[in-house]
Amino acid sequence: MKAIILAAGKGERLQPLTKNKPKGLLKLLGLSLLERNIFLLKEIGVKEIGIVVGYKGEEIIRNLSFNLSSQIQLYFFKNPHWKKGNGSSLLCAQKFVQNEDRFLLLMADHFFEPKGAREFIERSLKEKGFSHLWIDTSAAPGINREDATKVKLEKNFIVDIGKNLKDFDGIDCGMFLLTPEIFPALKKAAKNNECTVTAGIKELAKKKHLKAEPIKAFWQDIDSFTDLKWARKKLLSSIRSPTDGWVAKFINRPVSLFLTSLLAETSLTPNQITFFSFLLSLASALFFFLQNSFVAGILCQLSSIIDGIDGEIARVKFKQTPFGSILDSILDRYADAAIISGLTFLSYMQKPSSLPIILGALALSGAPLSMLFKEKFKSTFKKTYLPQKEDQIANFLFANRDGRLFIIFIFSLLNLPLIGLLIISINSHLLTLNRLIQVKRNL
Amino acid sequence: MKAIILAAGKGERLQPLTKNKPKGLLKLLGLSLLERNIFLLKEIGVKEIGIVVGYKGEEIIRNLSFNLSSQIQLYFFKNPHWKKGNGSSLLCAQKFVQNEDRFLLLMADHFFEPKGAREFIERSLKEKGFSHLWIDTSAAPGINREDATKVKLEKNFIVDIGKNLKDFDGIDCGMFLLTPEIFPALKKAAKNNECTVTAGIKELAKKKHLKAEPIKAFWQDIDSFTDLKWARKKLLSSIRSPTDGWVAKFINRPVSLFLTSLLAETSLTPNQITFFSFLLSLASALFFFLQNSFVAGILCQLSSIIDGIDGEIARVKFKQTPFGSILDSILDRYADAAIISGLTFLSYMQKPSSLPIILGALALSGAPLSMLFKEKFKSTFKKTYLPQKEDQIANFLFANRDGRLFIIFIFSLLNLPLIGLLIISINSHLLTLNRLIQVKRNL
Repeated sequence: MKAIILAAGKGERLQPLTKNKPKGLLKLLGLSLLERNIFLLKEIGVKEIGIVVGYKGEEIIRNLSFNLSSQIQLYFFKNPHWKKGNGSSLLCAQKFVQNEDRFLLLMADHFFEPKGAREFIERSLKEKGFSHLWIDTSAAPGINREDATKVKLEKNFIVDIGKNLKDFDGIDCGMFLLTPEIFPALKKAAKNNECTVTAGIKELAKKKHLKAEPIKAFWQDIDSFTDLKWARKKLLSSIRSPTDGWVAKFINRPVSLFLTSLLAETSLTPNQITFFSFLLSLASALFFFLQNSFVAGILCQLSSIIDGIDGEIARVKFKQTPFGSILDSILDRYADAAIISGLTFLSYMQKPSSLPIILGALALSGAPLSMLFKEKFKSTFKKTYLPQKEDQIANFLFANRDGRLFIIFIFSLLNLPLIGLLIISINSHLLTLNRLIQVKRNL
Repeated sequence: MKAIILAAGKGERLQPLTKNKPKGLLKLLGLSLLERNIFLLKEIGVKEIGIVVGYKGEEIIRNLSFNLSSQIQLYFFKNPHWKKGNGSSLLCAQKFVQNEDRFLLLMADHFFEPKGAREFIERSLKEKGFSHLWIDTSAAPGINREDATKVKLEKNFIVDIGKNLKDFDGIDCGMFLLTPEIFPALKKAAKNNECTVTAGIKELAKKKHLKAEPIKAFWQDIDSFTDLKWARKKLLSSIRSPTDGWVAKFINRPVSLFLTSLLAETSLTPNQITFFSFLLSLASALFFFLQNSFVAGILCQLSSIIDGIDGEIARVKFKQTPFGSILDSILDRYADAAIISGLTFLSYMQKPSSLPIILGALALSGAPLSMLFKEKFKSTFKKTYLPQKEDQIANFLFANRDGRLFIIFIFSLLNLPLIGLLIISINSHLLTLNRLIQVKRNL
């Protein structure tokens, strides 16, 4: 499938941020709005993207060509008359999609939550012959979002669209799946001196050729600083992982998300962060061997927090790779093994006996079981195991990785390594036993 | 979808085995041919099965009702005129499927490899409006299987069918997906005193309403002792796992398959065998702690062999369960941990120093990595990791479970536990490193 992104406008309200650059090049957590939309389209299977530029067009072309042309096929269309309205911009790309059944249309200055975009495409593609528009019904009717483009529905069809509708059922989110029928409609509207996409869309609505897809996902038309801040906040909260345990959720994530919001602006890659977190855990182990429980504990918890950042950066910057995911899993196991070995050594030095060694062996064999169970569960039942939901009372064992490292952290600060070792060695096995019982019971 | 199994005939040639029982109740590795076909249908999503009985019908009804009625909805149809031919049997079940778009038809005395049945259904369901027949083209043309029902093709359509065709393109395997059009066809054939399914099918073929689905999978019309033996052999070889390493493939499997062929006849469940294998590994660990390296080694290898049987029994008797699969994975990790702990203890007693303890920690942390990597690979790439194919030269590390336990076995027999420990502790990490490099390289 092909897609068109309209990036010709100026975006007056975002000045001074956009004084010297077009709105589409505005950065949001390390990627420009345009880059975000291009990666989004790539992720949902779009192979060729046409970008219509106008205001500071050369800058957009230079920027995107440099950053992205090796990753996806981009075509640029220049609209010298961009001031006329975005309808004229879409007409510039007519040839690019004229022979397609349907194509996607996005506004460069809109932010879309990826899961919403995926749902919109999936649902729209099911019905042939119509054009579709992602609409937001959550705020309507009643709440008037000043300046938003509103739509009036009859069943699933959009029958009217415009900024000044008084009676409306939803808001136009700025993502369309269109048939080439839009082009004659745009030309017809242009004859009435209405050169906007909305005016063309209105023609389709009149014929009941435009279906509404109400999608529950975050989107934002970036018109002001408030919009930009809000999108940033939403984007950050959307990359939390549903598999987080309590420690991850309430302690690690708030810190790691803050760090991610800073690091996303740099060129650090997720794999570099994975390695850094791994090095921290090796350093933690080293300090255990040096019998400095306090420093070791702090490094351990720090490593646990940083361990969340690689995934966050990957998600926020569309940099998730299979290798990165596997590397992270394997290095986490090595980090665990190193820290547990160090903890065992320190426990032994404090109380030389066979007890710490037995506990160390129990902890070493128990530590990988949590992840191992989750992966096996996933491949067996084809769904993700959500510890917070399914472990029930066993959540109090804190036997997932976040909890385990946190227990080590606390008891290391207290200089009670043997107690920490005792707890993590027993809890991982209790958790595994509990999970086996749950699976057996739920079948 | 509904299915009909024809189980009314007598099966003269299998006497004396079938002297007092109908052919469908003949056992093949612990399940009757009928039970095999019923489980097969259940596995591919059939919810209701009609079974037409004749010769010794009451016995079939009693037997299946007792064994299976809690697991799937069975309907029995009695054909008092079964001697007339199997066409009359199919007509007995007409009401059962009259209102279906299509239904499956199987012969009770045929054995079908499950993957073939699955492929047949999937392919047949893609095209509506026709009837379909699983045919075997591997032996044809040329090789004349005396007594088989042959088919003549024009493109994908069957244009003639019968036992005496001289010019033919394939063999009728005895599995059909039919439209209710078969019933008038059967009645028409019956008027000409031809009361067989083949005669009815021939009517569909004449109209070009019957499509051939050439499937490459094992099937067998069980007519003689040779057929039965052959099916048994094929069934046993089909349950080998594609993920087997060399030790599993060439040493463990031949033994475990032999044991499976015996144990399948008993009522032992896969989970009982999983536990037995686990107990053997605990016994192996115990003997390591008792410093009896020889017995420990033998128990270790025995446990490794028995560990294959649970899966084999599960596959051969349609008893695979998600819980069984997860339980096996988790208990294998505990078995590994117990054996490695015992091996470490013995190594330490023979050479008291920190070396065995360090190696023990390396081995304990390395042992789960092989499975962990494979599961992570599967959930990331949505395909099974095949060590024999993908590990390449790292296969020589023998660092999968079969190889690991075999190394422990050998070095325990030689009373060199520390050497065994050294090898398995290093090899598991080398294997993991090699796999990470492979994944990185292949992206």
